[in-house]
Amino acid sequence: MLYGIFSYDIASPRVGIQYKDLVLDLEVVSLLGYFDDLSIDPTVFAQPALNDFIALGKPAHRAIRQRLNELLDNDTAALADVHDQVFIHESRVTLHLPVRIGDYTDFYAGIHHAENVGRIFRPQGDPLLSNYKQLPVGYHGRASSIVVSGTPVRRPSGQFMDDNRLTFGPSKALDFELELALIIGKENPLGEPIPMEEAEDYIFGVALFNDWSARDIQRWEYQPLGPFLGKNFASSLAAWVLPFDDLEPFRVAGMPQDPTPLPYLQTSAPGHFDLELAVWLQAADGETVCIARSNTKYLYWSFAQLIAHHTVGGCNLRVGDLLATGTISGDTPGSYGSLLELSWNGERPLHLSHTTARTFLVNGDTVTLQGHGFHKGIRIDLGEVTGTII
Amino acid sequence: MLYGIFSYDIASPRVGIQYKDLVLDLEVVSLLGYFDDLSIDPTVFAQPALNDFIALGKPAHRAIRQRLNELLDNDTAALADVHDQVFIHESRVTLHLPVRIGDYTDFYAGIHHAENVGRIFRPQGDPLLSNYKQLPVGYHGRASSIVVSGTPVRRPSGQFMDDNRLTFGPSKALDFELELALIIGKENPLGEPIPMEEAEDYIFGVALFNDWSARDIQRWEYQPLGPFLGKNFASSLAAWVLPFDDLEPFRVAGMPQDPTPLPYLQTSAPGHFDLELAVWLQAADGETVCIARSNTKYLYWSFAQLIAHHTVGGCNLRVGDLLATGTISGDTPGSYGSLLELSWNGERPLHLSHTTARTFLVNGDTVTLQGHGFHKGIRIDLGEVTGTII
Repeated sequence: MLYGIFSYDIASPRVGIQYKDLVLDLEVVSLLGYFDDLSIDPTVFAQPALNDFIALGKPAHRAIRQRLNELLDNDTAALADVHDQVFIHESRVTLHLPVRIGDYTDFYAGIHHAENVGRIFRPQGDPLLSNYKQLPVGYHGRASSIVVSGTPVRRPSGQFMDDNRLTFGPSKALDFELELALIIGKENPLGEPIPMEEAEDYIFGVALFNDWSARDIQRWEYQPLGPFLGKNFASSLAAWVLPFDDLEPFRVAGMPQDPTPLPYLQTSAPGHFDLELAVWLQAADGETVCIARSNTKYLYWSFAQLIAHHTVGGCNLRVGDLLATGTISGDTPGSYGSLLELSWNGERPLHLSHTTARTFLVNGDTVTLQGHGFHKGIRIDLGEVTGTII
Repeated sequence: MLYGIFSYDIASPRVGIQYKDLVLDLEVVSLLGYFDDLSIDPTVFAQPALNDFIALGKPAHRAIRQRLNELLDNDTAALADVHDQVFIHESRVTLHLPVRIGDYTDFYAGIHHAENVGRIFRPQGDPLLSNYKQLPVGYHGRASSIVVSGTPVRRPSGQFMDDNRLTFGPSKALDFELELALIIGKENPLGEPIPMEEAEDYIFGVALFNDWSARDIQRWEYQPLGPFLGKNFASSLAAWVLPFDDLEPFRVAGMPQDPTPLPYLQTSAPGHFDLELAVWLQAADGETVCIARSNTKYLYWSFAQLIAHHTVGGCNLRVGDLLATGTISGDTPGSYGSLLELSWNGERPLHLSHTTARTFLVNGDTVTLQGHGFHKGIRIDLGEVTGTII
């Protein structure tokens, strides 16, 4: 069950869920009294962001979820009398950024991505730096420029070295990054770390995320304090957020962690998820091609480890914060989650067809990330995040 | 004229200005009708953050400023009849974080600081990396953990290398950083850079800022994506913000920029400011000592250059965003803006008295940053930001 913020006709932004090719308007469902016995503040559904809904907490979300399952059981029969009031066809709605994001953190938890980047930029040395397997490397990103899926992305201009000459102009190395975003659902007070065993309680849900990157700008600016303008021109978040509970059927053990991490990052419970991911490139000058298939199980660090590490020094998370995993690449070339890796820094153009190839993105290209889980007959859709370069 | 957010007795947080040892309650001044002819939305003064007031824009701020000057001329005589309604003694008020911060960016614009850090950590190489004089190096910081002056700062625990052994525990290298923060007053749309000549219009005001840093945690984690837990446990912002207009008498030319920066960072107008800064350390085990005196004129990049660079790729700034300068060190040891430099990474303990010395901060230490401008008989006070390590 995917939650999002939508508007239509003269209706202002409100909370809805995706149901087949319809959107169920939870503000109207609430106004019609279907949640009356659940002690839910009805105003949370009439907001331009999910934050107040998220802040209700997991017991309330589970009660709403159960009620919605009852209402949608037997294909909406229970809502037949009010069908046209509560359901809006997806073609009529405008989707909005689902959350008001306080802080955005981007991790680097995809180990195959980190190894590939190491091999590309430090061919002589160990592909992973010495801290990689001791802590989830991460950095703070820009929240203001996170846009909802479907928003066009303007190619940024900036400084970079071109043939060893300092140049200013539009980036020549515009890339996507296949990531999953965690939406934080609960706050911890400043100074109080979140222990591993409680960390998942702080996740409201997950959504696909594309951390667009200008590799040339990033390469020139990032020493010694990390990425800045190479990333902050735009990041795209899916319009629909999947509650964390829905991931339970897809829980798996992660890859072995050797060396064993420090105690504050240890857990005995499996904390990874088997979710299939795909990257589609609709070329400005050609057809649409699936250029990569990956899986969230390729993350080295679990979601709980990201949260436990983020807060171990006392940093406070707030409702609506976004924690992204970093690029999720698999261990084979067809599973790489960025063009930097797929074209090996432009050295090996990626052939989309007999006539079309890419090193980095050209104007008019559309990148769409998709994801789903499938296990023992249960399928869950993560939705998609898409954006076109202009 | 310093603006801030304060509460007292049962009065909820509201906008005030500092006047000698009093705070002038602008909500009450407004309710009493003193702004009635100015077409100002009176609700902006009854908010727990300055954001709505800031969003009024500079013409409104200037009209309010002029009215306040009239009212405060001749030592509050114009307000004599309502003195006890509008003035509250500073001893009775609680000061709050002055702005609701969207995104926080920290730059590295203090060239002497950057050189010192380079000399300490890369003694063989050029102290400045090759990009330093081409672009204002910066990174995104954590907004959620920015606290108002006076808030105690808990020493963070984390991972670090201690004698080449991976260790977890309280930081052994807790430091302060002497910085100035710009509070953004106007937003630019995503995708639309702010040119140099307009950049200062986007600054509402400035405030002293202490970017607390755990050097040992930072050193182990920061490659390749920059500082994270070494910084995000707390940063302290002054409670009082000085409008940018008030800096005008202290405008000076900056140091020569060689090489000449790219056109988007060029300007002919002087864009630096001559503001004296001081760092006071009240030792847990001793007296209070001024350990450094510096000046904002030691910044290599001007405020306008920070803004023009931040947005050149299209990144959008929002009202209430915070842009900090980075550590402002002078060119002599008594002017260094961090203990990392003052104790040369712990190699040369800083003597506070015959019996007390510091490499880094110990629990109970209080660091206070102060600033003022003085030029041709005009003195302006930047207030202070203070915090005690617990």
